[in-house]
Amino acid sequence: MTSRWETSRTEAFSDGVFAIAITLLVLDLTVPSKELNHLAHGILHQWPAYLGYLTSFVTIGGLWLAHHGIFRRLQFVDSRVMRINLLLLLVVSFLPFPTRLMAESIRDFDAERTAVIFYGLALTVVSFTVSALWAAVIRDRALLKPEVDEREVKAVTLASAPNVGLHLAATALAIPAPRAAAFVYLGIAVVAVFRARPDTTSEAADGGNDASMLRP
Amino acid sequence: MTSRWETSRTEAFSDGVFAIAITLLVLDLTVPSKELNHLAHGILHQWPAYLGYLTSFVTIGGLWLAHHGIFRRLQFVDSRVMRINLLLLLVVSFLPFPTRLMAESIRDFDAERTAVIFYGLALTVVSFTVSALWAAVIRDRALLKPEVDEREVKAVTLASAPNVGLHLAATALAIPAPRAAAFVYLGIAVVAVFRARPDTTSEAADGGNDASMLRP
Amino acid sequence: MTSRWETSRTEAFSDGVFAIAITLLVLDLTVPSKELNHLAHGILHQWPAYLGYLTSFVTIGGLWLAHHGIFRRLQFVDSRVMRINLLLLLVVSFLPFPTRLMAESIRDFDAERTAVIFYGLALTVVSFTVSALWAAVIRDRALLKPEVDEREVKAVTLASAPNVGLHLAATALAIPAPRAAAFVYLGIAVVAVFRARPDTTSEAADGGNDASMLRP
Amino acid sequence: MTSRWETSRTEAFSDGVFAIAITLLVLDLTVPSKELNHLAHGILHQWPAYLGYLTSFVTIGGLWLAHHGIFRRLQFVDSRVMRINLLLLLVVSFLPFPTRLMAESIRDFDAERTAVIFYGLALTVVSFTVSALWAAVIRDRALLKPEVDEREVKAVTLASAPNVGLHLAATALAIPAPRAAAFVYLGIAVVAVFRARPDTTSEAADGGNDASMLRP
Repeated sequence: MTSRWETSRTEAFSDGVFAIAITLLVLDLTVPSKELNHLAHGILHQWPAYLGYLTSFVTIGGLWLAHHGIFRRLQFVDSRVMRINLLLLLVVSFLPFPTRLMAESIRDFDAERTAVIFYGLALTVVSFTVSALWAAVIRDRALLKPEVDEREVKAVTLASAPNVGLHLAATALAIPAPRAAAFVYLGIAVVAVFRARPDTTSEAADGGNDASMLRP
Repeated sequence: MTSRWETSRTEAFSDGVFAIAITLLVLDLTVPSKELNHLAHGILHQWPAYLGYLTSFVTIGGLWLAHHGIFRRLQFVDSRVMRINLLLLLVVSFLPFPTRLMAESIRDFDAERTAVIFYGLALTVVSFTVSALWAAVIRDRALLKPEVDEREVKAVTLASAPNVGLHLAATALAIPAPRAAAFVYLGIAVVAVFRARPDTTSEAADGGNDASMLRP
Repeated sequence: MTSRWETSRTEAFSDGVFAIAITLLVLDLTVPSKELNHLAHGILHQWPAYLGYLTSFVTIGGLWLAHHGIFRRLQFVDSRVMRINLLLLLVVSFLPFPTRLMAESIRDFDAERTAVIFYGLALTVVSFTVSALWAAVIRDRALLKPEVDEREVKAVTLASAPNVGLHLAATALAIPAPRAAAFVYLGIAVVAVFRARPDTTSEAADGGNDASMLRP
Repeated sequence: MTSRWETSRTEAFSDGVFAIAITLLVLDLTVPSKELNHLAHGILHQWPAYLGYLTSFVTIGGLWLAHHGIFRRLQFVDSRVMRINLLLLLVVSFLPFPTRLMAESIRDFDAERTAVIFYGLALTVVSFTVSALWAAVIRDRALLKPEVDEREVKAVTLASAPNVGLHLAATALAIPAPRAAAFVYLGIAVVAVFRARPDTTSEAADGGNDASMLRP
């Protein structure tokens, strides 16, 4: 009972890292100055950069939703959860690097395959870390809010599990078909955002300071 | 009733993205090192960069006010609103890219027209997404705070609608007169900030934890 | 009475902009790769960059303290205050640009004077905007928390006024003696941080949710 | 009793600076475009950059945990604490600069030693500032929350003290063996994260708005 932190500052710090990582992605969108003469062509020619931008933006957006979904159910974090959360922030804030590599390499046939595989491995590590975060949370049920029942724990477990497998499969696809894999990454990210489920417990008791407001 | 999130973490994450996007703009202000010898001239010579900086800063500031105005009236977000909000953050965090292109191109006659049209199209998409966000909100009135009445819904709808049309018109103006259009974008952004209306409901019941403070 | 916003989201957004502007400054610290061979010398040789970094960091830190001091006394913001606050964020987030110019120019005699004057003018505009923010606040006393009395209003007015004059004087000094002026800017910023006064009202009634905690 | 600030905005501003400093580190991860032809080799060849990235990320993560641990026990900050906190943010936001230098220099024998010593000195200053922050806090026990007792003050003092010595020792090691020292920095950072202790007071009275939630 003595090894706990409250969640609010951890959420604030994590929100900051997610928001910065998602916004820094734009720094890698540029049109080389020699293409300024044919700007319309130059803008279109950057499509791999937009693909990387969009994929990483949607992926980080989906991770933020998953993070929100996990912390929404917590009343405390212990040391283990805090450390895995730091690990998750590490891999999220790393993601702009493989994004940039993939954007730079996608028209260079030698580099393309390596870059897309590298990006896929980064996504796999990210997915795995999200699953590990949830696994650490449910190891000690006392960290959860009292109104989170067994049925809901199972639902979140099911929702967070499959992404690791999907990302591994897409990374394997990058070996024969790197460009197809790059689009599959985007597809997985979009599906993850659409699958994100809001709080099924919002009618139940809530830790906010005006719980009555939650029942219209 | 089961598909809802509270608004506070979404506001915090959105504030982060708006604040970072608005502050990253300064990274594109530079004086080329060859102009350091005539620095006063070099600083003045950068006026297209300042115009882009100012326009995007005021535009994002106005978007933040509009976002604040919408979320101020919400007690929940559902999945649809959450997704459109992520889309809005995507286009807001994209804005530094067309800003940079416009600043780099405005003295290059070939590129100028394309860059100003591209910037205008980005603004149009941003405006449209704000309108879509509000439209998603009012589709399910249960998301609104109880004290938000029909009259106020109509007022916000009227206030958020016209920007799409204005931005489309300014983009069309960029075809014959790109520089004029660049200044019109700034004008629209300034007007949007001045038109932003504070909460007309601040005297009414409020979700804060000390509602009595709201009545002096 | 109808034209008001609450302060919390404005504070969160402003904190974001201040925190990002203050942290982005580090991106302009670099040692040119040709100096890596004599790195110890290369690091020391960058002293103008450190001076600029330190001055802008302390200046923005002091501005954040002043902003905190103003908003701490507010219960609402109206449209005028909101617009001047956006203007303040504009000039704060602009500050990394003159910082970079000053750091790049300080050993180039032609550019040095211009860069230091430009930086001083930016500081003057920032100081003026802080004063304008406070002036807008006290135009409508209903924006202030009830416990803020006339004596305290005068104290804050006195504390925020003189910086404009000091910055103008230091900018004038930059005409004959740019390097001396650069050090004076740092001195003014350090004094501003040391002069920042905490809330004299902390014992009085407070808008927080546990006012009793404020009296030990 | 009159010279105090509440802690919440200081925490928010500090969280912003920590989150940005930790996320900006990724901007220094790049593969030179001439290595794109052998990308797999190019990615592996960047190992000093990853080492610097990881060390600084874990160091800043541990600093954030330490900062959280200190502010968690405060109910007020006075002027002295506020100024030392600004100093801590200054050195934290400076850390990406020696990180970049170390990453760029680690394969250049002339520069390697200097860069690793410079990085170690920066870490030493950071550790010292954390200790100074805690020392300033316990000078005036009225700043602490009432439930923080003498035993706990001693425990935090013991936990925050040794890092200064460790960092000095590792910096001294960098004179004969710079690469070994670089790995020792990482080791110290990892240990600091694992040693971070959650709040032992979480069962006791708490300043939150729903203290009953803290007792399961």
